[in-house]
Amino acid sequence: MSERRQFGGLRIDDGNAERVRDWLSVEEPLQVDINGKPFTITMRTPGNDVFLIKGLLYTEGVVSPEGLDYELHSREDPRHPGNTIADVRVPPVYVCEQLLEKRSLLANASCGICGKRELDDIRLDGDALTPARKLDAGVLPLMGERMRGGQESFDQTGGCHAAALFSGSGEFLALFEDVGRHNAVDKAIGFLLDRKSLGDADLLFVSGRISYEIVSKVFRAGIPYLAAVSAPSSLAVQMAEQCGISVLGFCRGKRATVYSNPQNVVQA
Amino acid sequence: MSERRQFGGLRIDDGNAERVRDWLSVEEPLQVDINGKPFTITMRTPGNDVFLIKGLLYTEGVVSPEGLDYELHSREDPRHPGNTIADVRVPPVYVCEQLLEKRSLLANASCGICGKRELDDIRLDGDALTPARKLDAGVLPLMGERMRGGQESFDQTGGCHAAALFSGSGEFLALFEDVGRHNAVDKAIGFLLDRKSLGDADLLFVSGRISYEIVSKVFRAGIPYLAAVSAPSSLAVQMAEQCGISVLGFCRGKRATVYSNPQNVVQA
Repeated sequence: MSERRQFGGLRIDDGNAERVRDWLSVEEPLQVDINGKPFTITMRTPGNDVFLIKGLLYTEGVVSPEGLDYELHSREDPRHPGNTIADVRVPPVYVCEQLLEKRSLLANASCGICGKRELDDIRLDGDALTPARKLDAGVLPLMGERMRGGQESFDQTGGCHAAALFSGSGEFLALFEDVGRHNAVDKAIGFLLDRKSLGDADLLFVSGRISYEIVSKVFRAGIPYLAAVSAPSSLAVQMAEQCGISVLGFCRGKRATVYSNPQNVVQA
Repeated sequence: MSERRQFGGLRIDDGNAERVRDWLSVEEPLQVDINGKPFTITMRTPGNDVFLIKGLLYTEGVVSPEGLDYELHSREDPRHPGNTIADVRVPPVYVCEQLLEKRSLLANASCGICGKRELDDIRLDGDALTPARKLDAGVLPLMGERMRGGQESFDQTGGCHAAALFSGSGEFLALFEDVGRHNAVDKAIGFLLDRKSLGDADLLFVSGRISYEIVSKVFRAGIPYLAAVSAPSSLAVQMAEQCGISVLGFCRGKRATVYSNPQNVVQA
């Protein structure tokens, strides 16, 4: 299991060509079965599969919080060497059977609303978040630096997303990388679930853009601040406004733009 | 229907804050029904929905080529104003019913293997491509410039992917933008299908990374060259090598790296 692998390439530069060996991010399928039944495939970067699966099943509402201490057995697929099948054993009472039937949830390298067939399925339920404390915008540059400094796979491959967790005071909690934006977020949230410390994180920092699905996942994890190096989409901002989440886009050095719930961001 | 929309924001810069109005890429759900039955939702940037749906249904193998001249009726969802439902009427003989039942295909902002439940579902079928002519690497910089010059939504929003089609000699055919990488590719392929000119395109240039699913879509469209500004994943390169597709990563100015089938790329 490795996060990156060397490949041969032919590097062209203004008419010259040379053979090189480059590190590329590993993308491999992980099939998730629930109680022995194929549920979904996610294209992910291997590593932290336990966190990925917990985060995915929780943020998609497939397994209720009480069911998250499930047993998980991973094995190599006999028909596809190298590919992994993870079987999750959950007491059926904790599984949302309706979703299981209705969605054929597929979490690919950057999926979040996979398997939803109807527009009714994509509304967010629950009360808007009310952050315990306001965010001091002055800590954002340090958070951004801390995330960037931890992107080891990105440094080698140039093709890997990151999601980093921080407390409201700027304390670094964890960072995960993956070829898929959503997988990186699921790993981060799954990490919190695994440690039963969902309340410790106040801010999730992502290396790329913010789409609807990222807001949806962060809302379910109860994280009130969502920062990104790049742009949010229109729907991400609209949903975040309703959900009580402050979206901070274009966080680069000492700059950032708050697109929703700016009343919760202060400059101390 | 618009591709970008203005939002208010609070721009922070080293302790100073000012109110701004920024353009963000529009992300909105499009529900696709097939013969009256909800099939999938895709989170997409409005515009060119006809191309998007044709490309999606074709590249995912849901509708066979003969069935692509279907009728398509779009309406606003009465229960969710602003959201669109497109009903595709296809003679059932052209619909892969097995996929329809098995997958609840969800093409979100960047999905490609949505709804596939088992590892057997993600293999690519068909013979490897054999390009009619070799690609002259010397035309790549002009293609890259042409694509970058056409990224109008990206210029305004900073958060939009592009996919551009070229002939092997470097002639520009079309460019599409979308919040989702896969949607931009589906729109490009759907454009070719709509004009019954699938054979005209020899190269697809994407503004971001190359994952497995992009290779899968391009393979189905018979396009033998796939270029990207950023990195490919390991699986993208492995699949492309088998499929006869030349993957060119990190195409920036006069530089590029060929990761698969380099024998088809020449420097004239």
